[in-house]
Amino acid sequence: MKIWLLDNGSIVIEHTQLMWNVPGEQVRIPSYSVLVEHDDGLFLFDTGFDFEHTSRVLPFELPEQTPEQTIPAQLELCGFSTKDVGTLVNSHLHFDHVGGNKHLTDSKVVVHEREVAQARDHEPFEFFGYSDKTWDYDGVRLETISGDVELAGGLWLFETPGHTVGHYSLLVQGRKPTLFAFDVVYTSAALDKGIQPGFHIDPVAGVRSIRRIKELAEEHGADVYFSHDMDAWQGYRHAPEFYEV
Amino acid sequence: MKIWLLDNGSIVIEHTQLMWNVPGEQVRIPSYSVLVEHDDGLFLFDTGFDFEHTSRVLPFELPEQTPEQTIPAQLELCGFSTKDVGTLVNSHLHFDHVGGNKHLTDSKVVVHEREVAQARDHEPFEFFGYSDKTWDYDGVRLETISGDVELAGGLWLFETPGHTVGHYSLLVQGRKPTLFAFDVVYTSAALDKGIQPGFHIDPVAGVRSIRRIKELAEEHGADVYFSHDMDAWQGYRHAPEFYEV
Repeated sequence: MKIWLLDNGSIVIEHTQLMWNVPGEQVRIPSYSVLVEHDDGLFLFDTGFDFEHTSRVLPFELPEQTPEQTIPAQLELCGFSTKDVGTLVNSHLHFDHVGGNKHLTDSKVVVHEREVAQARDHEPFEFFGYSDKTWDYDGVRLETISGDVELAGGLWLFETPGHTVGHYSLLVQGRKPTLFAFDVVYTSAALDKGIQPGFHIDPVAGVRSIRRIKELAEEHGADVYFSHDMDAWQGYRHAPEFYEV
Repeated sequence: MKIWLLDNGSIVIEHTQLMWNVPGEQVRIPSYSVLVEHDDGLFLFDTGFDFEHTSRVLPFELPEQTPEQTIPAQLELCGFSTKDVGTLVNSHLHFDHVGGNKHLTDSKVVVHEREVAQARDHEPFEFFGYSDKTWDYDGVRLETISGDVELAGGLWLFETPGHTVGHYSLLVQGRKPTLFAFDVVYTSAALDKGIQPGFHIDPVAGVRSIRRIKELAEEHGADVYFSHDMDAWQGYRHAPEFYEV
């Protein structure tokens, strides 16, 4: 299998959002999506944020995104078009993970059933998180799932709630097992220290999900990739470079 | 009935602790206890923080407390001794609400049953909150309760979880109904905006508890007192002054 990491730009958040209740300087964090070429087709995980939405609704997050950092442009960089993506999976439905969904109208869209229900009827403190509703367009081919699911041979989704009610993490079980924790923790340091993001709906579940990520990494001998860790991101290969796993 | 507010000094917290995920300047907040003289005896609600414990375990909170701001000294100011307190109630078992419990060895101590269990076996992110264990001394006359409870005529404890699993708020139903929200919200502005503290175990329950405080205040025509609102505190009567309710 091949894995590309698609650069979607960056935003700025408070340190207490990066690590719950841990004070510090504001930090610019990356946003990226994960593209997997599998014998069963092309799978895309998340679609980053939409620049116009973020600039309008969350201008304080100082979004930066060039036209080359949008989903269509990033897919093109890898030699694909939006029509080539058979399956789009959203780890969860926060604005910085669904911004490009609207470009993938030919794809089946897979999301946890609880996540869909919550994004449509969320708690008041989830307002900014679920503020981009453009994933929920007329005619979207939504397939809701629950439990741990093997999407295709070696492509596993593991339930890791806490940050949101229906959050999934992804294990790519190739020659080189690769685990995308998505927003269970934002950074490598947060995983080491066991500190979840400041945005969450169930911090007790969040603690269990951090433990689960550590156990999955250990059990499968997997490298863990972090969703919003600028230092880690700068060390990753960015599309069109890829990982052969 | 008479109500005295017993000054226990102050600590400094991050603004994101005062209001979850809302950035701002650090803020010095008051800590106080509530003493009620009732026909059935003397009831004390909470006991503030212990200066030595806080200085040692949470020095970054810059505790300030004079010898006159301890529970024994404050009771004396009102003409009582620690032996006069028949019933001590802890709204919850965080360090800044149990620091003086150890001086009340003659009192019955009433706490929510889930709160006691949690304080003894807490989540990792509750470490600082439950760091003062001196309430749990050998021979403590602990009486655990659950549900909404009328402790004595007109002294109501209402379940308001979220900040902690077994948090209680207090309604004194005298001629002038008075509602102590304790740590459901820290300030008047936080109640208005519906923003819970940055420390919590169940933010969804926290939202419901904020709603409950508003409904109780409305239903009973009660004045709401805030646990950690410096501006509000400076407008309250401090012991030995009291409220006749």
